[in-house]
Amino acid sequence: MAASSSLCPNRTLSLSSTSHKHNQFASFHSVLRFPAFASSVSSRCRLLSDSNNRNLTLRLKASATSAAPVMDQPTSSSSTPDVSTIVEVDLGDRSYPIYIGSGLLNQPELLQRHVHGKQVLVVTNTTVAPLYLDKTISALTDGNPNVKVESVILPDGEKFKDMETLMKVFDKAIESRMDRRCTFVALGGGVIGDMCGYAAASYLRGVNFIQIPTTVMAQVDSSVGGKTGINHRLGKNLIGAFYQPECVLIDTNTLNTLPDRELASGLAEVIKYGLIRDAEFFEWQEKNMDALLARDPSAFAYAIKRSCENKAQVVSLDEKESGLRATLNLGHTFGHAIETGFGYGQWLHGEAVSAGTVMAVDMSYRLGWIDDSLVKRVHMILQQAKLPTAPPETMTVDMFKSVMAVDKKVADGLLRLILLKGPLGNCVFTGDYDRQALDDTLHAFCKS
Amino acid sequence: MAASSSLCPNRTLSLSSTSHKHNQFASFHSVLRFPAFASSVSSRCRLLSDSNNRNLTLRLKASATSAAPVMDQPTSSSSTPDVSTIVEVDLGDRSYPIYIGSGLLNQPELLQRHVHGKQVLVVTNTTVAPLYLDKTISALTDGNPNVKVESVILPDGEKFKDMETLMKVFDKAIESRMDRRCTFVALGGGVIGDMCGYAAASYLRGVNFIQIPTTVMAQVDSSVGGKTGINHRLGKNLIGAFYQPECVLIDTNTLNTLPDRELASGLAEVIKYGLIRDAEFFEWQEKNMDALLARDPSAFAYAIKRSCENKAQVVSLDEKESGLRATLNLGHTFGHAIETGFGYGQWLHGEAVSAGTVMAVDMSYRLGWIDDSLVKRVHMILQQAKLPTAPPETMTVDMFKSVMAVDKKVADGLLRLILLKGPLGNCVFTGDYDRQALDDTLHAFCKS
Repeated sequence: MAASSSLCPNRTLSLSSTSHKHNQFASFHSVLRFPAFASSVSSRCRLLSDSNNRNLTLRLKASATSAAPVMDQPTSSSSTPDVSTIVEVDLGDRSYPIYIGSGLLNQPELLQRHVHGKQVLVVTNTTVAPLYLDKTISALTDGNPNVKVESVILPDGEKFKDMETLMKVFDKAIESRMDRRCTFVALGGGVIGDMCGYAAASYLRGVNFIQIPTTVMAQVDSSVGGKTGINHRLGKNLIGAFYQPECVLIDTNTLNTLPDRELASGLAEVIKYGLIRDAEFFEWQEKNMDALLARDPSAFAYAIKRSCENKAQVVSLDEKESGLRATLNLGHTFGHAIETGFGYGQWLHGEAVSAGTVMAVDMSYRLGWIDDSLVKRVHMILQQAKLPTAPPETMTVDMFKSVMAVDKKVADGLLRLILLKGPLGNCVFTGDYDRQALDDTLHAFCKS
Repeated sequence: MAASSSLCPNRTLSLSSTSHKHNQFASFHSVLRFPAFASSVSSRCRLLSDSNNRNLTLRLKASATSAAPVMDQPTSSSSTPDVSTIVEVDLGDRSYPIYIGSGLLNQPELLQRHVHGKQVLVVTNTTVAPLYLDKTISALTDGNPNVKVESVILPDGEKFKDMETLMKVFDKAIESRMDRRCTFVALGGGVIGDMCGYAAASYLRGVNFIQIPTTVMAQVDSSVGGKTGINHRLGKNLIGAFYQPECVLIDTNTLNTLPDRELASGLAEVIKYGLIRDAEFFEWQEKNMDALLARDPSAFAYAIKRSCENKAQVVSLDEKESGLRATLNLGHTFGHAIETGFGYGQWLHGEAVSAGTVMAVDMSYRLGWIDDSLVKRVHMILQQAKLPTAPPETMTVDMFKSVMAVDKKVADGLLRLILLKGPLGNCVFTGDYDRQALDDTLHAFCKS
């Protein structure tokens, strides 16, 4: 974070222990709006202090100069900044903070300031509940005896991200007589966040909700930006809503219990940000992938923060995915086809995205839009992250084509794809490509 | 319409036959924004002409002076104005027109200007499809060969307003490879409109949709204002979304095929507008109920228009029902309990609302908030409309209490009700009432 430090060198680095009093900035020493873009966008910086003048808070407001993906040129490429951070998702009166830090579930005030009404429904799954449900309930109720917390524990896995499982959330909410002022809390990975968010969007036509992501995948991507929904047997995430949370609370300690395979899956999305819009972050990942796999806390905190900054900026510029936001789906069209065709839950989402990214990169190269050096770097970093670089052997060209035909990015019959174009960190979202290149890529990765 | 005529006497009255060219005002002689309120709210009036100067269009913009229900004092109490009208629902960049007139389904340009993309899914039911599906498809395709229209025909009735039936809409949309630019069209009554709207809100996280209501209930109430959703076995409309249509097209000719019982059901909502906010309209209804039951076209056109004006104003002031909009639910809390407790579809929605209105009026009287003369007038007009004035005999106090406990208007355990208070045309939405009055009302209408 040399870029922002050089702008505002006086910020303090210790986490405040003062009470919060509904000032979402009081307890965090640094409030960063997209600092990764400080050098490539117009920026302004001001120092904020709390009433006791003990904490100096940096707010760096960046306004992008265009909606196109931005190539970053930070002044430091491998520093690993401090971890306790707020990233703001700027959506006018629906703006919200992403809190990132170690042990945040031990700070009840942080969560409680975002709870509305007296009723809370925690939505979690059979894997996460034994680990973090009690802690979450404590965080919701400590010093707040008036709040009534119910929970619903869903089966774990992508194959349960369906209407039948979603109905269990509604059943529980209705049986518990949750009213419009209640708050839904998503405690878990991407599946839980997507389902709880869609349930919150639909219950009584919309109630407050909070994301507490416990996987890398959810912390770096799915919990931020308000995309919620469920799968249909014919395609992923085809039923859902854009519905923003009240806050996202990322306690990086929850990663301590995450299986290696889940951890690697989340790294696919981290790598994505580098490829589509943040070359400097990609280079940092190339240097720090071993630290990430070894679960180095500060490396992980930095990767999460920088990922959230990228996500927050894109979502702020294009909430409903009229264009720019689609670039976050690099590798996802191929990846969703793998998840749907191979069977939900057979591969983790990030594993499918990883193979899909390799396919998108292959196609970009066939189109002559990128150098082969970039193709090699993508292969190398995904292999280093222990992620697959090809689809399952049972996937056929027809299976890909059939699922990709119902992708949300199809418009008037034309499939639009996110492809890399130009130097590292640049991509396009386009339907204007040679169909032969797509066919060639599919045949190169499928036996039939 | 003496009020607006006196303001702008030069408006023309003939329906234009010129092509529309995506100017939604060009083909209608009068564009009226809440003219019923012309005398009670601040108004301004301006004349608009199209490029050929052949049509003069009146736009009357009214801004209410407060969000409280307004007592109207129009200059004419029994006139029956012309029928071809646009009522605008003013919601900023999500504003939309309600077209009201005879034979509008024979004007393809009207519908087609609101279709986005090349794919349309018409959602209808087994009763309406044989009557109006072909006509609707013609209206969508005449002179527009590039559009592809699919349809899904659902079973008819409130008891099918559930998740299982909703999934049939998603199945059809996905199997037909509808993309984000498609348009869903709701062709039918309130159940179809609510389900199609919620499907449109959720399909690919939101696609365009159009309401073509074919019942009085849908034309005067449910198609306007963006409330969409489905029932849960424990309560009505507990799962849904606020999602506004692109337009509402009311072809009053569709009422020619409506069964008497359905027609009367819709009148319950017409009567509601008079009771809660439009005394003059209520008085007009008292004088014209026989004409309405005899399906007099101009009486019906006026009732629909004035109902839509009331609805549009309330929705414009309070889209998400933070307060004022709840007043549209007079009789609905009791009514929903009847529908849920007695069994979905046993009574029509308006029949349940009618009995619920009598109960709300009874409770208002017990609280000393209204005169007994108003109680009598409510009984009289509902009986005249051939609507029930008491709940089914099988309903018990406990059944009412159990369902009312999960009503969307419960907040932090307190049930808020819409009750009449003061002279005709005034109501309150409140949780501040004597619980004994509610108990007394329930016991007065239930045997046990």
